[in-house]
Amino acid sequence: MVFATIDRIFQQMSRELPDVSFRTRMWDGTEHQYGSGPQEFLLSINSAAALTDVLTRGSLGFGEAYMAGAVDVEGDLQALIRFAFLPTVSELHLGARDKGRLLAHAVKHRNTQRRSRENVQHHYDLGNDFYRLWLDESMTYSCAYWGEECETLDQAQWAKYDHICRKLHLQPGDRLVDIGCGWGGMLAQAAAEYGVEGVGCTLSTEQHAYAERRLKDLGLHPRVRVELADYREVRGEFDKFVSIGMFEHVGEEYYGVFFDKVRELLVEGGIGVLHTIGKERERDIDPWVGKYIFPGAHLPTLAQIVQNMGERHLAVTDVENLRLHYAHTLEAWTASFEAHESEVRERLGDSFVRMWRFYLNSTCAGFKWGDSRVFQVAFTNGLRSDLPLTRAYLYA
Amino acid sequence: MVFATIDRIFQQMSRELPDVSFRTRMWDGTEHQYGSGPQEFLLSINSAAALTDVLTRGSLGFGEAYMAGAVDVEGDLQALIRFAFLPTVSELHLGARDKGRLLAHAVKHRNTQRRSRENVQHHYDLGNDFYRLWLDESMTYSCAYWGEECETLDQAQWAKYDHICRKLHLQPGDRLVDIGCGWGGMLAQAAAEYGVEGVGCTLSTEQHAYAERRLKDLGLHPRVRVELADYREVRGEFDKFVSIGMFEHVGEEYYGVFFDKVRELLVEGGIGVLHTIGKERERDIDPWVGKYIFPGAHLPTLAQIVQNMGERHLAVTDVENLRLHYAHTLEAWTASFEAHESEVRERLGDSFVRMWRFYLNSTCAGFKWGDSRVFQVAFTNGLRSDLPLTRAYLYA
Repeated sequence: MVFATIDRIFQQMSRELPDVSFRTRMWDGTEHQYGSGPQEFLLSINSAAALTDVLTRGSLGFGEAYMAGAVDVEGDLQALIRFAFLPTVSELHLGARDKGRLLAHAVKHRNTQRRSRENVQHHYDLGNDFYRLWLDESMTYSCAYWGEECETLDQAQWAKYDHICRKLHLQPGDRLVDIGCGWGGMLAQAAAEYGVEGVGCTLSTEQHAYAERRLKDLGLHPRVRVELADYREVRGEFDKFVSIGMFEHVGEEYYGVFFDKVRELLVEGGIGVLHTIGKERERDIDPWVGKYIFPGAHLPTLAQIVQNMGERHLAVTDVENLRLHYAHTLEAWTASFEAHESEVRERLGDSFVRMWRFYLNSTCAGFKWGDSRVFQVAFTNGLRSDLPLTRAYLYA
Repeated sequence: MVFATIDRIFQQMSRELPDVSFRTRMWDGTEHQYGSGPQEFLLSINSAAALTDVLTRGSLGFGEAYMAGAVDVEGDLQALIRFAFLPTVSELHLGARDKGRLLAHAVKHRNTQRRSRENVQHHYDLGNDFYRLWLDESMTYSCAYWGEECETLDQAQWAKYDHICRKLHLQPGDRLVDIGCGWGGMLAQAAAEYGVEGVGCTLSTEQHAYAERRLKDLGLHPRVRVELADYREVRGEFDKFVSIGMFEHVGEEYYGVFFDKVRELLVEGGIGVLHTIGKERERDIDPWVGKYIFPGAHLPTLAQIVQNMGERHLAVTDVENLRLHYAHTLEAWTASFEAHESEVRERLGDSFVRMWRFYLNSTCAGFKWGDSRVFQVAFTNGLRSDLPLTRAYLYA
């Protein structure tokens, strides 16, 4: 009986996305084919418990079952995840018990300064050696910018930093602050190419050690340097502000604190760029991602960003949505990760490999078909009237 | 005694904006000089009543006294208005009686369909001959785009339409809807240059007659045509949506209705550009402008726009703030208006000339130093993944 029900569910899914054909295999060996095109994936559900997990606990159930190998996917994992963005599938909501657990989890991970440190270290202190395996040479862990001349991820990350440097109108001698500077890629490029000085901050001890070493090796230290500090601890006066892929970790209840800090750090007329994942509509972060990948994270709506800026005289001059750039970036990361799969498995185990694979692929699918966006928001602190009238200089 | 108080107020203003020097002249002939640079304007206050108006009724009092000639300004009117954006001056708020009157006025001008028609006709049916005196050849009454190659207003209005056409990715045969199409400039250019078909709407009988005539004369009718209709009355299915300088008249309580209509008119994956004056923070429209120039108008915050879009799956892809482009446009209009001052006076009277002069100059100053912005918001209806990855094509 249960197989007949399941079959009807898959038939409905298949009707809603007819250009994706696939097969399913149940734990007793039963197989079904859906769609008449070339098979894009085989979904194996290896136990009745796994089936219940997937059906009743949404992405959290699927993600956990996938990590444990209780469900498996051969072929295109993203093609499967694409079904999650169909209305009928995304309506498979969580039950009350899971919701209660997630709420307790969220409260536990509120972004107080102490908690922020733990949340960040949870993810970013997996080891520089791990990230070096699959990130680009610049160790950049955020959306790249695939300009027409970019063929490799290295080039696209360089182009991303340069795109932001242009939006910031960087000039030699500018004082730049980089909130959430990661492994120091932005600071290194801005100092080397544009002659700025400045400070970055990160809460990850591994990133801090790496970035400081790197800036010293490049002869850029202490003109640019990195503090192991919370953004709320950074002091100083800066001409330019940048934050790339960090705002996701601020947490909704601290948005006001964050933008108060932006206004405090920037001189009057100073220029900033906020680069962050976001979304169109208010929605909680995916429960599996919130639990396993980014505890404490919250994806802002564009409205939340510009509302908070506007209330503080931070004048938005330009918003660019780089949604598909992140999909391309994640595809590059996925390919690189898979090329180093055996090293990761040896170091961190099979469940970790499966977790990371599901993370990269589901995130990528979210940019392609779901509600994930990337916003680069350029702004000035108060008004600034001496900048180029058009954005043509960004593309010259 | 009152002159000593006034003198202290002007001294304080002068200290806050020391690079603007000016003189004042009271109704008894008393003159004072403020600042030591070249005098930018002479402000004459010609009666005690006018002084009271200015001091107690803010921009409404000043505007009315200026229209009546009870206060006068020789020299740079905008340099005077610039003081209105200083915190100490903008704190000269309205009293309860004026607030009550304005509230009654606002309620009276709620944008029901009948009222919208009256509000629009109040401003736009002043006569095509009047607007032809000081607008550019294309009869465009919205912010131009001063690209590097633009020297004249004609060129800059052409460039504005072309910039929007590019943002819309217009293709031959596209069905375009233009909500608030004015005298038809956008439709004419989009049809002639990009080969689209489509429909515009306006509530102004004068604009409607002019636009229909123009499209016929150009041989573009009925491939593109204009309806004398409220935006809520427009029907059809379109590939592209544009609205330029009309959203200001929608009224805050109808934003949801407006964007529901956008979603209804656009096909899935359709592209739109909303071009509107806006602001960073929630504020009522200037009371003088609301009473004399644009009854029923409300300037949206960027947050209101993107929030309403996001809730309706209208995905924001690009926001450009053209603030200083409108200041340049208004300077061109002002120069043209002053060149035709005597014709306007003959037709509409001296008080109208003074009203329009104050409107153009105060609006211009609002973009330069105040909280007026222009947002071009590009979006897609749902997701669209086949467009160029970067905005470089806009500048090619």
